[in-house]
Amino acid sequence: MSTHRERVVIIGGDAAGMSAASQLRRLRPEVEVIAFERGTYTSYALCGLPYLVAGFVAEPSRLVARTPEAHRRNGIDVRLHSEVIGIDLAQQQVIVVDHEAKREYRESFDRLVIATGARPRSLPVPGRDAEGIFTIHSLDEALALANWLESQRPRSAVIVGGGYVGLEMAEAFITRGLQTTLLEAAPHVMALLDSDMAELVERELQQGGIRLVLGAPVEGFETRQGRVTGVITPVGTFEAEVVVLGIGVEPNSELARDAGIVLGDRNAIHVDEHCRTSAPGVWAAGDCADAYHRLLGRSIYFPLGTTANKQGRVCGLDLAGREARFPGIVGTAITRFRETEIARTGLTEREARSAGFQVVTAQVRSTTRSGYFPGATWMTVKMVAEEPTGRLLGAQIVGGSGAGKRIDTVATALTAGMTLDEFIYLDLAYAPPFSPVWDPVVVAARKLAREV
Amino acid sequence: MSTHRERVVIIGGDAAGMSAASQLRRLRPEVEVIAFERGTYTSYALCGLPYLVAGFVAEPSRLVARTPEAHRRNGIDVRLHSEVIGIDLAQQQVIVVDHEAKREYRESFDRLVIATGARPRSLPVPGRDAEGIFTIHSLDEALALANWLESQRPRSAVIVGGGYVGLEMAEAFITRGLQTTLLEAAPHVMALLDSDMAELVERELQQGGIRLVLGAPVEGFETRQGRVTGVITPVGTFEAEVVVLGIGVEPNSELARDAGIVLGDRNAIHVDEHCRTSAPGVWAAGDCADAYHRLLGRSIYFPLGTTANKQGRVCGLDLAGREARFPGIVGTAITRFRETEIARTGLTEREARSAGFQVVTAQVRSTTRSGYFPGATWMTVKMVAEEPTGRLLGAQIVGGSGAGKRIDTVATALTAGMTLDEFIYLDLAYAPPFSPVWDPVVVAARKLAREV
Repeated sequence: MSTHRERVVIIGGDAAGMSAASQLRRLRPEVEVIAFERGTYTSYALCGLPYLVAGFVAEPSRLVARTPEAHRRNGIDVRLHSEVIGIDLAQQQVIVVDHEAKREYRESFDRLVIATGARPRSLPVPGRDAEGIFTIHSLDEALALANWLESQRPRSAVIVGGGYVGLEMAEAFITRGLQTTLLEAAPHVMALLDSDMAELVERELQQGGIRLVLGAPVEGFETRQGRVTGVITPVGTFEAEVVVLGIGVEPNSELARDAGIVLGDRNAIHVDEHCRTSAPGVWAAGDCADAYHRLLGRSIYFPLGTTANKQGRVCGLDLAGREARFPGIVGTAITRFRETEIARTGLTEREARSAGFQVVTAQVRSTTRSGYFPGATWMTVKMVAEEPTGRLLGAQIVGGSGAGKRIDTVATALTAGMTLDEFIYLDLAYAPPFSPVWDPVVVAARKLAREV
Repeated sequence: MSTHRERVVIIGGDAAGMSAASQLRRLRPEVEVIAFERGTYTSYALCGLPYLVAGFVAEPSRLVARTPEAHRRNGIDVRLHSEVIGIDLAQQQVIVVDHEAKREYRESFDRLVIATGARPRSLPVPGRDAEGIFTIHSLDEALALANWLESQRPRSAVIVGGGYVGLEMAEAFITRGLQTTLLEAAPHVMALLDSDMAELVERELQQGGIRLVLGAPVEGFETRQGRVTGVITPVGTFEAEVVVLGIGVEPNSELARDAGIVLGDRNAIHVDEHCRTSAPGVWAAGDCADAYHRLLGRSIYFPLGTTANKQGRVCGLDLAGREARFPGIVGTAITRFRETEIARTGLTEREARSAGFQVVTAQVRSTTRSGYFPGATWMTVKMVAEEPTGRLLGAQIVGGSGAGKRIDTVATALTAGMTLDEFIYLDLAYAPPFSPVWDPVVVAARKLAREV
């Protein structure tokens, strides 16, 4: 019998990596697990950062689901401030820089999990390095922004990018009383919605006090004494004492690429349903990896915390020798701007057409509760189906409190491959405080069913 | 060619009957449609009545989805105060009493739709006919109760029955400032929940100021000068200046039975997936009819407004010669008591066991939003699955704002026949204001998956 104790190395101490580590340790406590994290924190809620800046979260520690100490108590050797700068597949070693001890060393592994996450896309324009320009893709960055807001007391803010982070930061800045401008390079915010639904969001942003400028790509930043004072676009220069960039993320996949591991959509690490990469003995999960899209029938880059957790779980189970298979995503996402909830699942009309589907669409406006019930507010549903089969392809929702999570019903139906006819007769919960007698998502399906 | 104009007669002017009538008229305007309604209203929201009594609904007219005049403008011959007292299948005639004109007549039909709804179950005990004892199964009854509350200003109320109506009336009475006692004959309220989940509801009732008495079947009413003063049970007599009975409903199926039409579960009119009865040319829909339960594989009596609307739609489409099939229910229902939302779908543990399933169950307590997010509140999910297949059989939810409608995700999964393994990886919407990273329904499924 071998006395060798198996060692699994995890690169990245956040959702995906630590989920994998935890599952593995739970099922196979005899395996040695080392997790390298270049930052200070493990397992924290990246999606909560805008709300930390808004002041909704009392303590940064509330965002930490599990501390390094808690992981260590579970037997995981968590090494903080430890950046993996290279993977040597032939030697089965990672090359690590310990930023605290200021030393470089190699650590061997039997199996490896790459969970390096993503980083904000860069914006290589003049003035980008000025003080007062922030991204918020880590707890440290969010705290730096929060400290800046406290110490500098800016009055005017510009947000660059009208995606999820842009909208959430718009809520944060308005909540803190800043004059807030949102610049979007494209003709509409929320590229993950069709433009007719994005327009509803734009109206809410404007009614919520945001100065919204569409078609305004950033060309540079005005600065004074090294600090940002304005944002330059072809349609004007916008005063800003603080700027947040939210123009999307890209996968931290260079380590994998340099080790010869196959990348996929948008340079994400390509993984199979067990989260295995092209290299034997190497797994990947989370925001550095792609995910199989069940409607598109191919893997895409669609980084989300919820997928990271699921992939991490599958990865850990697979490492432990348990049968586990991540069946893929259907493209669900949700956010809000103040009272307005915004959700999508499946394919938008634009996405479906560009994927080659024959589609029909319907949009309906309904109410979140029975119309006569106190607190009932508007919600608009757009639904997309395939012609002539009637198969559901996707839905988008914009509306008041209680609107957004209804997308889960559609996401579940998409996963099951339901047609409009099946969807219409779903036995959904109805009582006046919760819904009109026909749920708004069903009203949309009924309208659409007449057109197929 | 025949010059005979086809005539369809509808008995009952509420959700099911008028949905059928409307669908038929929309698709086949050449058909004559006569709808007999013994009351004053058409197409109103029965489920809204407790909230009318609570004072949440400004105007009774807000509960009317479509007035008789509106139906008439759609070409439906609505005859109010017109009670059908017999069906003569051989002659293809209904016997009608016009309570306004005080005359009886026969009207012939080519095809017939029975949508006579349900009535409160009777409580044949001494004192039942005293003033101050109400049921609220019609708009007139709800208005009578509201008027009584306004004119008599009672201080103490007793609710008999801890089902949906009982809970909703408890909210109504507490909202109006009455000292409220709820008497339940069984050991627990909410027979549609397992007792471990019902206990959560009981705690909320008590914390909400309701005096809750379990195991207290009503044996009679104390009266003074013809007015109720108390409710007599084996465990004591409870003072009451007003009483509401909410002990369930039973189908108005005597007309059908007397015409020789086959009845099913609990004497509901048995219908097939097209809402056709055992008699050729006769359809039934809504609270007088049964419905196919997809998990039980047989038809049961489970009267709900949402099913009535769906059956009415199918009935109308089938009458119009369109392909339409009601695939059945999965037993979804929802209600609330103040801030506490209560929902169920599929089978409870008790129902599943009594139907002969081998089951495993799990109960988890989670939060409606990410735990650190303002407004996050508790929710408990109980999930039931079949052993050893892992097929989902049902779920129950009790919790704060945003908890209840999550039942729709499970209802959709049940409809698709999903297993726990499929359910766990559903691509549900996550952002901190909406959910923990693993939705509570998925947390329950994960816990359960370990036990299968």
